[in-house]
Formats: sequence, C-alpha cells, structure tokens
Amino acid sequence: MTEPRPITFLSDYGYEDEFAGVCRAVIARIAPAAPLIELTHGVPREDVRRGAVMLADALPYAPAGVHLAVVDPGVGTGRRSIAVGTAEDRVLVGPDNGLLWPAIEALGGALEAVDLCSSPFRLEPVSATFHGRDLFAPVAARIALGAKLNEAGEPIEPDSLKRLELPAARVEQDLVVAQVLYLDRFGNATLGVRSEELEGGPLHPGGSLTVAAGDSTREARFVRAFADVGEGEVLVYEDSSRRLAIAVNRGSAAEALGVRPGDEVTLAPAR
Amino acid sequence: MTEPRPITFLSDYGYEDEFAGVCRAVIARIAPAAPLIELTHGVPREDVRRGAVMLADALPYAPAGVHLAVVDPGVGTGRRSIAVGTAEDRVLVGPDNGLLWPAIEALGGALEAVDLCSSPFRLEPVSATFHGRDLFAPVAARIALGAKLNEAGEPIEPDSLKRLELPAARVEQDLVVAQVLYLDRFGNATLGVRSEELEGGPLHPGGSLTVAAGDSTREARFVRAFADVGEGEVLVYEDSSRRLAIAVNRGSAAEALGVRPGDEVTLAPAR
Amino acid sequence: MTEPRPITFLSDYGYEDEFAGVCRAVIARIAPAAPLIELTHGVPREDVRRGAVMLADALPYAPAGVHLAVVDPGVGTGRRSIAVGTAEDRVLVGPDNGLLWPAIEALGGALEAVDLCSSPFRLEPVSATFHGRDLFAPVAARIALGAKLNEAGEPIEPDSLKRLELPAARVEQDLVVAQVLYLDRFGNATLGVRSEELEGGPLHPGGSLTVAAGDSTREARFVRAFADVGEGEVLVYEDSSRRLAIAVNRGSAAEALGVRPGDEVTLAPAR
Repeated sequence: MTEPRPITFLSDYGYEDEFAGVCRAVIARIAPAAPLIELTHGVPREDVRRGAVMLADALPYAPAGVHLAVVDPGVGTGRRSIAVGTAEDRVLVGPDNGLLWPAIEALGGALEAVDLCSSPFRLEPVSATFHGRDLFAPVAARIALGAKLNEAGEPIEPDSLKRLELPAARVEQDLVVAQVLYLDRFGNATLGVRSEELEGGPLHPGGSLTVAAGDSTREARFVRAFADVGEGEVLVYEDSSRRLAIAVNRGSAAEALGVRPGDEVTLAPAR
Repeated sequence: MTEPRPITFLSDYGYEDEFAGVCRAVIARIAPAAPLIELTHGVPREDVRRGAVMLADALPYAPAGVHLAVVDPGVGTGRRSIAVGTAEDRVLVGPDNGLLWPAIEALGGALEAVDLCSSPFRLEPVSATFHGRDLFAPVAARIALGAKLNEAGEPIEPDSLKRLELPAARVEQDLVVAQVLYLDRFGNATLGVRSEELEGGPLHPGGSLTVAAGDSTREARFVRAFADVGEGEVLVYEDSSRRLAIAVNRGSAAEALGVRPGDEVTLAPAR
Repeated sequence: MTEPRPITFLSDYGYEDEFAGVCRAVIARIAPAAPLIELTHGVPREDVRRGAVMLADALPYAPAGVHLAVVDPGVGTGRRSIAVGTAEDRVLVGPDNGLLWPAIEALGGALEAVDLCSSPFRLEPVSATFHGRDLFAPVAARIALGAKLNEAGEPIEPDSLKRLELPAARVEQDLVVAQVLYLDRFGNATLGVRSEELEGGPLHPGGSLTVAAGDSTREARFVRAFADVGEGEVLVYEDSSRRLAIAVNRGSAAEALGVRPGDEVTLAPAR
C-alpha cells in the first residue's frame, strides 16, 4: 500500500466554531495517516474572490496532493460540487463557484473534472448547509488514500467549470491603472497587478509617484519595505504575492485613500 | 509496541495566547507520534454549555481515541478533574463540570471514571490556573500511549459525574416550544430541538410559520438553505447539527428576534 | 536515515491571512515527516517583547527540536536573520531583534549562531516582506532534516546577538515594585516578577495587600484562584508562567488600575 497524500485545507469557517475541526475529524477517521496542512480558515465569510486569490497564491508553495477549499455561499442551492485534476497529479476539491479557478489556472489548467453530488464517498445524510463535513472532506480523504477521480464522481467537461477572472491592469506609457484586489486586516491594499507586468512601464522602484483613487490623490514612494518611508507616509511596494500594494507606514491605506476591493487606482510617476 | 491513539482537543483557550500551543507541546513531548486533531479553541470563554454541545456534536465524526476538552471556569477550586471511559474504548479527559456530559451520553454513557487530582502523570508543580498544561494534556498523552484509566487516577462512581442536561423541547399539536441553545457569530440561533423530534408534529419543511420570542413575532419559512428566502427574511432550517435553527438571510436572527441563549421560542404553522 | 526533528512555530501572522499556512506548506514540502507543533500565531502584531516572553515560557514544555519564531517589524531592513544553537541540541530560527533572546537565556545561552541572509536553503527570490516563507521556514525545515548550522548560514559571534532584557523587580523589606510585562485579552496584568523572587519578602499567599499604579490604589488579596475572591474584587496570584499577576474576578485589572505594559506597580502588605 502506498503512503496517503497530503491534504491542504482552506476555508471561511473561522476559528470560533467547530466547523473546521469536524472536517479535520472526518479526514482523520478516513485517512488517519494523511498529513493535513492548514492554509487558513480565516477567509472573510463568503468572500469567494479573496479565498480564490489566497488559494492560488498558496498552492505553488504546497506539496502536490489534495487541495480542499470551502468558501461556499451557495451551499444547498444548485451549484455543483467538484473535484478537479491538474498537472503534478494535484486534485482540487470544493464548490464549483469560481473559488478553485485561479488556482487551477496557476497550476496549468484542468485535466479532468468530476461532479461530486452523488459521490459514493459522501457521508449520508448530506446536510443542506455543511458540505465541507458531509461531502468535500470525505472525498478529499478518499482521494488522498488513492481513489481515482472517476471513482469520486461523474465526469464533467473541464470547460464547463465556473470561472473567476481577476481584473487585469492597464500599463500605459505614463500611468498604471489597477483594481484593488483585496484589503488585509491592516488596511494594506493589494492591487491586481504583478510586478513583472510593470516592466517597460512608467513605474520604477525607488521613484516617487502619485496614487489616485476616487477624489483622493496622495504622494507616495515605490520602495521595498515599510521602514523605507516615514510614519504616516504612503508607500507602494511589491507584496509577498509579487503584486503591487499600497500601504501607509503604521497606518491604513484603505482609510487614507478611501478604497475598497474592486475600486480602481491610478499610479503615475511624480512630475 | 502499539501505535499511539489519536487525541482530539477542544478548549476555550482562544488563539491570541499560547495556552493551547503549550498543551500541544506537552502532548508532543510525551506522545510524539499521537495524531492531534484540533476541534476548536474558540469556545466562548468559560461557556461550559456551548463547549459541551460542540464536543457532543463533533465526537461522533472523530476517530475513537482520547478526547481532551478544557472549558474550566472552576480551575483551582474544588471541582474534580476526570477521565471517563465509554464505548469504542474512547476516553474523555477534562474538568468534572458538565463539559463532558452530553458527549458521554451521546457515546452511550460512562463505563468507567477516575479522579485525576493525584494522577502520577501530572506535571509538578501543578499550577492553580492551568490544569490543561499540568494535568489534562499529560494525562491525555499517556492514555494515548496505552496507559489504563486506573493508572491515570483513582476510580470514582460514573454515577457521581456532574451532569449537564440540555433543555428539552415541547412538540404539541399546534406548536413547538424550544429554547435557544446558542447563537453563532452570525446571529443564527440554534434551538434545543432535533429535526427527528418534529415527526408527527405541526411543522413541515416547505411551510410558512410564525416565530415568537418575548414580545416579538415574525413570519418565517421552513426551508433547506439560506438562499431559499429573500434577503432580510427569516428562515427556519435544520442546521448541520440536525437541530432547528432560526436565521435571517444576510442578517442576524439574534437581533431580529431579540433572543439570547436560554430564551424560549415558540414556532407555529402560519394560519 | 534519521527521523526528522519536530518544529515548533510561533508568529504574529494571525489567523485571518494565509501567511502562517504558506509557511506550513513550505515546511511540509521540504520536510514532510517533521512534526509541526503550533505554539500560537496570535502574538500581537509586531510586539517583539510579548512574543519573546511567550516563546521563552513555552519552549521548556516543548520537545527539543527546531524552534521557528517570527515577529519581525524590521523585515526588509538591515536586521540580521539568525539560527542559534543551544543546549539539548535545540536550534532557534528567526529575526535577530531580541525575539529569541529570553528563550535562548532560558535554555542556558547560545552555543553557536549563524547569519542566514545568504543561506543556501532560502527560496529565491527572497521577498522584502515575507522572510517567514522565503527564509525562516525553509531553513527550519532543512535543519529539522539534519542540516548543520554551518550549512545553513555564516557563523557569527553568539555575543553579538541582539538582547532583550525583561525588566527586573525590586523586592524590598515592605514593598515590591514590578513592571507590567503584558496584558492578556481579559485585562489580566502579568508582572515582571516570578513567585520565587518573593521568598523572604513582604508578600505572602493568603494575605491582604494594596496595589498601587499611577494615581490608583486598590485593596487586593493574594490568592490561588479567581474564585477565591468575590466578583469585581482585585486579586494577586501566581499565574501559569509562575509570575505574579493582577486580575479582577469577572472584570479587567487593566481597566480597574489604568495600567499598560511597561507601567510600574507597587505591591505592599495591607496594614
């Protein structure tokens, strides 16, 4: 018998309730020797886009295995439950609501996909509100033990998977326009633009620039670290996901600029 | 030598301090190969009843093993510290304050119990405020390694264990009266009535009903999922613990009805 | 091949983001069989002193192994990244900002130290803001697999490590003066004095005393447990770290006395 594969786990179940813990219990019962790697259960409640970005950013650092993810505002409605195979023999398990899509793309696309709604691995009776426990966790555990995707559910077209496109940035000759992808709990605003997209554009590390959002315009510096600017000053930097982000040293960029996820921000070199 | 048994762990230690982490360290030092399954450390502080319900709901999903649970407002006072054996060779370890009782009942009752206060497995000196670290964690780890209950403490009568009875519901011909068992962090109110108790009663899935609590009465629908009612509407549903619960889609039932844990709620079919 | 060593992990990454999870993924990829013991990720953001005390208090309970700790307000600036060997063949890995110092002292001092900035174990490119993922986690994982310190980085003088001295208490004939070391989330104030330092001094368990801080003076009792005083009353007790602490039963000592970390508190026997 082969070793069970590792399972990563990400959700919006939070830490106050036992939801994530019950899923862990279900996994431990079926696949006691499968290593469980907790990515986070702190995705903001029902925030599919934030969870999708976290998952896509984290998986390249994780060992190949089974990737369980649950942010599921449509649980109990018609949305499909899926398992999706990608390169490196990775399998993603979760709701078909776009949550898995950016990660699937980052892993090179879906090679195979199944609909889990009648999976023989589900725990009966399947509740209307907790598919993590009754469907996704047991399926992930059985796949970690070596079950094939076609034993877990009914084949579906990979092309039919629900997509979630992250907003693209515009890099022009004298400015860059990007959306706020998300805010973290410190008010740092991550933008939907990766630093490699800036090559040949107008923004250069070390330079001064203006950051405009809505009615608000602020001077900023494009630096490497928070400590490179004074307290209360605005900085633009490459964050740990290799995206541009805006922060205020010891403050909140979200407050300083009045921005929310989805808002457009314009960055331009200072004259 | 046999494999060490898995240990589940539930507490109100929270995530801001190192308390749960130090218990994990103690376990890892004594029983490094025992799998540790974290149920949650987010039980509201000193809320023995909420912890007891979470534990009883989670354990049927967990592999048989050692079940460590600490919600312990009486630490350092006279309350006993116990380990309790049940069917399936499960052992529950924690304070004798009712926390373990509903789980013991759900597992078929106590077969054996010991008082741990002079356990040879304790870490000396036992502090007055942190029995998780000094008593419960090392006892759980030693039992996971194969120690017998009578090696862990002094036998006591299973009948002498502190009980915690959850409030029973009344299902009558034209109404159901149940207590609010707990509120979750979204304001959803779980009632002390399981859906199987409703059989033959006046409430039927799909129907309309009235929900009355104190001075407040609201129209509601008995549905499967949040998305089955409009935003701001009240729903009654079977939650993931198979109990009836009241929610407001994208809102808070606790606020809408002004209810707290222990309050009585009356459900009746709409006329 | 020998067994990989256990890794403990403490940080201020919190639970809302995937930062701690990505470090876990990095570790699982390099050292899949190394047991990971989570101490906490709830250190208050950038609070090096609080993290240092938590780490020093927790490690004596943890098995010997690799001790990864990240509270790192200076990430991306000039502060060194270090791995430090102590007695029992323990290795601490983290930023050289004092975070590791009290733990190193509690373990008997540094026997060996290396600077990790050009470590061959780092993940390239090393980001400016997430050394946990790119440097500390992979180094900890490789050391857990058996790498020697001099393979992980460049030797430095143990004497050159950044120190963090915790404030000493003054035990005089008729009073004890100590600083507030930290407040926990319930407003209990832990003082920088261990109960063994009180021997021969004026304070005795069971006695009444006055607690003075700034303009505020309160009567208190030196007891073992919260339940030894009435609701709303002030107590002084030995907390689980064997330090003196001040609390209000079912209330907040921080509010009652108006104290913050670093404030001086004077304890004297009641006349």
